[in-house]
Amino acid sequence: MDRRLFLGFTASAAVTAASGSLLSVASATASGRYTARNPLLLNKNENPLGMSSRAIEAAKKALSIGHRYAGDYVTVLAEELALNEALKPQNIGVCNGSTRIIDAVIQNQANKNATIVAPAITYDQAQEATVNWNMAYQAIPMLADFKMDIAAMEIASLKIDGAVLVYLVSPNNPTGRLTPSNSIMAWIKRAPDNVFFLIDEAYHELVSDPLYKSAVSLVKGGYKNLVVTRTFSKIYAMAGMRIGYGIAHAEVMSEIKRYYASWNVNIVAAITASASLKDHAFFKKSFDENQTTKQMVYKTMNKLGLKCIPSEGNFILHEIGMDLKPYQRAMSERHILVGRDRGTGQRWNRLSMGTVEEMTYFIDQFQRLHS
Amino acid sequence: MDRRLFLGFTASAAVTAASGSLLSVASATASGRYTARNPLLLNKNENPLGMSSRAIEAAKKALSIGHRYAGDYVTVLAEELALNEALKPQNIGVCNGSTRIIDAVIQNQANKNATIVAPAITYDQAQEATVNWNMAYQAIPMLADFKMDIAAMEIASLKIDGAVLVYLVSPNNPTGRLTPSNSIMAWIKRAPDNVFFLIDEAYHELVSDPLYKSAVSLVKGGYKNLVVTRTFSKIYAMAGMRIGYGIAHAEVMSEIKRYYASWNVNIVAAITASASLKDHAFFKKSFDENQTTKQMVYKTMNKLGLKCIPSEGNFILHEIGMDLKPYQRAMSERHILVGRDRGTGQRWNRLSMGTVEEMTYFIDQFQRLHS
Repeated sequence: MDRRLFLGFTASAAVTAASGSLLSVASATASGRYTARNPLLLNKNENPLGMSSRAIEAAKKALSIGHRYAGDYVTVLAEELALNEALKPQNIGVCNGSTRIIDAVIQNQANKNATIVAPAITYDQAQEATVNWNMAYQAIPMLADFKMDIAAMEIASLKIDGAVLVYLVSPNNPTGRLTPSNSIMAWIKRAPDNVFFLIDEAYHELVSDPLYKSAVSLVKGGYKNLVVTRTFSKIYAMAGMRIGYGIAHAEVMSEIKRYYASWNVNIVAAITASASLKDHAFFKKSFDENQTTKQMVYKTMNKLGLKCIPSEGNFILHEIGMDLKPYQRAMSERHILVGRDRGTGQRWNRLSMGTVEEMTYFIDQFQRLHS
Repeated sequence: MDRRLFLGFTASAAVTAASGSLLSVASATASGRYTARNPLLLNKNENPLGMSSRAIEAAKKALSIGHRYAGDYVTVLAEELALNEALKPQNIGVCNGSTRIIDAVIQNQANKNATIVAPAITYDQAQEATVNWNMAYQAIPMLADFKMDIAAMEIASLKIDGAVLVYLVSPNNPTGRLTPSNSIMAWIKRAPDNVFFLIDEAYHELVSDPLYKSAVSLVKGGYKNLVVTRTFSKIYAMAGMRIGYGIAHAEVMSEIKRYYASWNVNIVAAITASASLKDHAFFKKSFDENQTTKQMVYKTMNKLGLKCIPSEGNFILHEIGMDLKPYQRAMSERHILVGRDRGTGQRWNRLSMGTVEEMTYFIDQFQRLHS
């Protein structure tokens, strides 16, 4: 394992730039805020800011038409998303969370008896689906630096007869790690006809690394062998609203849409999503707060000698310096809920970012636990 | 065809009891209300009342946690629904509209290579799914009175080797017709092990016919060969919120849940549904308004000599006295949107009920068209 890649062992400019002054906010003021019934939630990759005020205003108005099917508003949202990507509405599939599009793509491939190729470790949505559809699933170990081993995945895919579905979360979850997009893109471009790609870009808007490029450019380039999925859950703080979308060649999207009821979208979610798209100030605030809190955690873990995987998501996979179960218990006693085992071993945890104030409390409690 | 069964040819007590006085509300006051951009919507079986004020209040509060996944609130809703049915939460599967549960049941049966047996005509959800899963679909003609031919369906199912999925909407859509529940229940009770039933009770809460009984009693009786689906779209006026549920034996529900992401429920919808369940006044108002408006339509069609199928839903399938396309055009010119062809022939339309005021305007315009 190339330890230099782990921020716990670096003193990067980014880490030293972390807003240390924020840590001086006395945790004493925050400690009384959380209770057993209202704990600090750092376990589910939710955006702690809550929906933007513009989104909430739009949602309140939308409630007056909660008895109407969302059709027209889904059409509007698809047009807005298409415009943002310089694509056509036919390239967009709006759905109840990107999960539903992911399922639809997998179900389509199940009908082709596809084998799924995916990195280990990654989001478990695809692997869970294989049970229902009796699909083969090949988990390809990641590189020591937790980047996806694109070369090994490509070789594995070439050995498979028949359809292959490659499932890549970029940046990956639960590691947060970015695999440079050029290696993914090059593979998609040269892949044979039997290989189809599902590129899950749930954390797309949170990325700051210049080595990242959305795979949507390939859709624009006319490639028919991929679907890109996106969500309003993360940057727009709408996890509970369940709205996301897929982006693909119009012919591909048309085929995928057969696998879900396209009218089955919540009308409040559709209208809220449209409002969120226009709230650029919230977008920036959401991005900035996530960058700031990640630096706070990097700095803390660095100080404690605990490794972190550099994250381009809204969470950090990091060493906890003890086994997971006692760690969960100890944090729970401090009214903080942290993650569960995500196949990353018993001494690691995927920590969701709270607000700066919330992370100040978390860091204080984490340091006390390790002092 | 037994014409006596069609209200257009009867002078039943129910028809004469219709609130004729309501018709005297001058349509002139209403006619200016609808425009090409804001037409009267009588085409999608939406509940015109809009969500209850209690539901809207709950929804507004819920928006402050739109960034949180719905998990806990789905659990609460499942407990409330279970309590209402004297069942356990494990018997309930809450989902994004009952459509998603219907899909999950079909997908489960697709894995068993099931043949679907359903009446013709019925809701097209199941038939559409067969295309994706390459399932055989047997459409069994209805009786002349538009009741489902349960005997013919049972005989058809007995001739099929392997798994059979019987899809019954009760009361049926788009006919609105009730098939007496005792014949359905008796079949479910004596069916062999290869036959599974999907009983879609979307209009359950709107039924007034004493010959109707929910198939949930069979779930209570321990039967494992059925799933009953319900929705908040109709009686609770929440079509755009997308929330519904399935009811089945705990083992069956556990198997069905594998086919959908149970956490993929909109948090506002879950909370609004819980609030709606407690709003008994709205429930009664919703039921009563639907009964009243149906009687208004029966009376009008009777007067014009146009047949109606007696409906236990929130819509009426009725003769329009002309072909569908020119009818749609003529009503559209009057700023009223009516239904599309639902396999019921070119001289019939499935009309959704509006409010009493809306139906007064509709009836006035319909009568002018036929004068």
